[in-house]
Amino acid sequence: MGIPAGPAVLSWSRLKRLLGSYGTWRPPSAAPERCRAAVGSRLRPDRALHTARPRCRQVPLTCERYGLRRLPFGRLSRQDVGFFQGLMPGRASTDPEELKQSNVDWLKSVRGCSELLLKPKTAAEVSQVLRYCHERNLAVNPQGGNTGLVGGSVPVFDEIILSTALMNQIISFDPVSGILVCQAGCILEKLNEFLEERGFIMPLDLGAKGSCHIGGNVATNAGGLRLLRYGSLRGTVLGLEVVLADGTVLDCLASLRKDNTGYDLKQLFIGSEGTLGVITAVSILCPQKPKAVSLAFLGCQDFSRVQETFTTCRAMLGEILSAYEFMDEKCMELVEKHLGLSNPVRGSPFYVLIETSGSNSTHDEEKLNSFLEQAMTAGLVTDGTVAVDDKKIKTLWSLRERITEALTHDGCVYKYDISLPVGKLYDLVTDMRARLGQRAKNVVGYGHMGDGNLHLNITAESYSHSLLDAIEPFVYEWTARYNGSISAEHGLGFKKKQFIQYSKPNEAVFLMQHFKAMLDPKGILNPYKTLPYSP
Amino acid sequence: MGIPAGPAVLSWSRLKRLLGSYGTWRPPSAAPERCRAAVGSRLRPDRALHTARPRCRQVPLTCERYGLRRLPFGRLSRQDVGFFQGLMPGRASTDPEELKQSNVDWLKSVRGCSELLLKPKTAAEVSQVLRYCHERNLAVNPQGGNTGLVGGSVPVFDEIILSTALMNQIISFDPVSGILVCQAGCILEKLNEFLEERGFIMPLDLGAKGSCHIGGNVATNAGGLRLLRYGSLRGTVLGLEVVLADGTVLDCLASLRKDNTGYDLKQLFIGSEGTLGVITAVSILCPQKPKAVSLAFLGCQDFSRVQETFTTCRAMLGEILSAYEFMDEKCMELVEKHLGLSNPVRGSPFYVLIETSGSNSTHDEEKLNSFLEQAMTAGLVTDGTVAVDDKKIKTLWSLRERITEALTHDGCVYKYDISLPVGKLYDLVTDMRARLGQRAKNVVGYGHMGDGNLHLNITAESYSHSLLDAIEPFVYEWTARYNGSISAEHGLGFKKKQFIQYSKPNEAVFLMQHFKAMLDPKGILNPYKTLPYSP
Repeated sequence: MGIPAGPAVLSWSRLKRLLGSYGTWRPPSAAPERCRAAVGSRLRPDRALHTARPRCRQVPLTCERYGLRRLPFGRLSRQDVGFFQGLMPGRASTDPEELKQSNVDWLKSVRGCSELLLKPKTAAEVSQVLRYCHERNLAVNPQGGNTGLVGGSVPVFDEIILSTALMNQIISFDPVSGILVCQAGCILEKLNEFLEERGFIMPLDLGAKGSCHIGGNVATNAGGLRLLRYGSLRGTVLGLEVVLADGTVLDCLASLRKDNTGYDLKQLFIGSEGTLGVITAVSILCPQKPKAVSLAFLGCQDFSRVQETFTTCRAMLGEILSAYEFMDEKCMELVEKHLGLSNPVRGSPFYVLIETSGSNSTHDEEKLNSFLEQAMTAGLVTDGTVAVDDKKIKTLWSLRERITEALTHDGCVYKYDISLPVGKLYDLVTDMRARLGQRAKNVVGYGHMGDGNLHLNITAESYSHSLLDAIEPFVYEWTARYNGSISAEHGLGFKKKQFIQYSKPNEAVFLMQHFKAMLDPKGILNPYKTLPYSP
Repeated sequence: MGIPAGPAVLSWSRLKRLLGSYGTWRPPSAAPERCRAAVGSRLRPDRALHTARPRCRQVPLTCERYGLRRLPFGRLSRQDVGFFQGLMPGRASTDPEELKQSNVDWLKSVRGCSELLLKPKTAAEVSQVLRYCHERNLAVNPQGGNTGLVGGSVPVFDEIILSTALMNQIISFDPVSGILVCQAGCILEKLNEFLEERGFIMPLDLGAKGSCHIGGNVATNAGGLRLLRYGSLRGTVLGLEVVLADGTVLDCLASLRKDNTGYDLKQLFIGSEGTLGVITAVSILCPQKPKAVSLAFLGCQDFSRVQETFTTCRAMLGEILSAYEFMDEKCMELVEKHLGLSNPVRGSPFYVLIETSGSNSTHDEEKLNSFLEQAMTAGLVTDGTVAVDDKKIKTLWSLRERITEALTHDGCVYKYDISLPVGKLYDLVTDMRARLGQRAKNVVGYGHMGDGNLHLNITAESYSHSLLDAIEPFVYEWTARYNGSISAEHGLGFKKKQFIQYSKPNEAVFLMQHFKAMLDPKGILNPYKTLPYSP
């Protein structure tokens, strides 16, 4: 297979010399130039990137809003469009209406100006697309269900959008091992439905399941609601098929639970947000569908009781505990106010949602009852409700799953997705609330307690520069002080890439940049994302 | 930090051009030259690498036995030894007796001729050692507990042995999250004892637990007996501290369950067998100690019943199933004959060992009893015994755990560690037995049924070239035909590196070679291991 020669890859030592010594290296901070004569931005260029705007307004172009400089990629020509239309007739769209949707993220917070949307059906087509783009130096934005929260899934400038929407075939499922092999564009919820009919479930679940693609889930290392029980995708993904920047197809689509033959290449693509390769197929280990599921929705009087309830239920529910989520009362007010949902347990500053999944409903019920009795007797929880039927379980879950949606109706949202030691989890919310006072409309905290994952969200009537100054870098410094992560599960995408150094040492960032330079020497794959600087 | 300039790293595309096109590339097959005037080898150079010799004989030097050519690394000088003795007084040994042990693997199958054994206590010392070796172009063999089965843990020539034996400190343990942080040289069993006192256990367990180091476990991505329940190290290892070939310390020792800030660099070092960096500390998520453990040791009349028993118990035991191991009657004969152990269940062609771990002994017992009743009624198992007390549990486990040891007493052992679809697992043993007939003393199969992992072992009175010809490449071709892995959990090390292409496509091998060239441009880290060819 012919590989067009790209720019020479920098050796790591040379890269380090170019960028200076570890101690003094910082992400470039000079204000970037604008790409076009355009609307002036009143926002600081590398700030305000993680805010979502109320849905009613027109979303400004990202490149204009943040005054970014376009990298010197090729410009899409008529000949290029002709090539793609010849390659995949009817699936290479330049229709402005269709592009409109794919250019904007779900939060309506960032917008690109791509003029071409490609919908390949096979890895071979993806390979042909990338080989051509690599030769022509055309930038590419891989896109799954476009449900990301950090602007990773839409173009920043005019990158060609490479959608996995038509790569939606299930390749195989083995009911003995529980291993599913499917194309990257399969929708998570559809896969789960397919599996449930066969007595299995997907090992991950998240609010966006109705739209998100499994390829996007893997590319962003999505966490979600089942991680506590079934672990991360790094353990459950068994194989990947990936197309590299130069069109090389890397077939590591093993369907084996164990394989220690050489370095585990697939891991590099899990969580790389489409910057190192395009995932075209996934092999994943699926757990058996639990025979019994129950859900307890409980109120706690303070956060220390939320914590103690967690350690108590972990000890008493043991192997059947499958989720432990928490949310503060402000979250519940917002889902009631903006979405009209009804909170069945009132008057508590905190709520927790505990799910059990097991193989014997009698045993599970006994364990849950013992735990609830203990928690009530010890004063850990003051009120609550328990659901065992599907409909009520779904209703209770929606209280937690739809908080993100409710927030988008509350105004301009400043979103943070933080990992912290469990004991520190809510202190950040309290400190932030005290710090912002009346300047914020709402400061709310919720998240995956069992994983030490806090979703901190701040809303205001409109974007305010001084409010952002009060939040940042305070929130990142606070997180770094406790060795937390500034992105637990959302990834860095476009919005958080400048802040990676709060959670990763310079040596690690250098190494990542070197991997990027090695695998994608022209930098055509999802540019402007994940890393603060690409050599 | 000063980085000495190494040879320029090859770009991937250049590497591919150098090595030829994908379609025609093969691992170099020309017979390698011998390094010294030495004992002639009657074995083919790249074959017979995975056999273990009976313990009574002297182990030949690997380089002589296989007629290998030493790569052009620097030779250890008196000045070098002086430098290391100054750096770590009393911990830089040239004592032949001490070196004798470290030069030979546990199986007594391969032997190096290192003249220096270093025992650093900190990552800073490892960094100084590697920086010096990198400058001086001295090859280094990282060594943990030296319990590996593929010759990855001992030198092939005169590589300096860098032992983690004195890096045995526990750094922290958080009883809320269950996250343990410790140095690489901590012995697995000691860690487990430490955790058990605090109500937790290590997420992995293996026969070598009394000697193996956690750093070595991670470097080889050890599987073992608990993988079925707690998943692989790729999910449970949360962070690593690694020293790179040039002495750079990469601190990714996070203690967070979730962290999506950039590429997950630590994954590249998990399973890289010390060829990309030296792991100096590990952060790992530990499960709670189960309140109740029980073990069933059962006899099955054929392998289809072993399989059906597995699917039945997985469905009925669900979340409390923590191990499902199988072994054939030949295995049991060998542990009885060579180790004097007693098999409590006789007269079955197959035996299975089923472990449950749960939080409620009454519930677990009920589940286990229901399953046993069902399995007996359906004729899946014919006889068996159940243990709930620690002593009997350990006795039963030793029947399975000590098979490897029993085999070493049976003669020359040809060892294979194969992943296959569960339905095909034992067919390879049957086919091999039929193929070899009287030429083999014993052909035995055992392993981790739940993980699709077969340990196929063939014994003979002495090494025989024609026997090896009958086994290979048949065993690898058979495995590749069913998309299996030629190394499920043992790794490739020195013995299997030439066979990687049976389980990985050329594109993947190329990429691995490129990672190696990038991270260790001089190739000083554990040379002659893991990859078939290093540019």
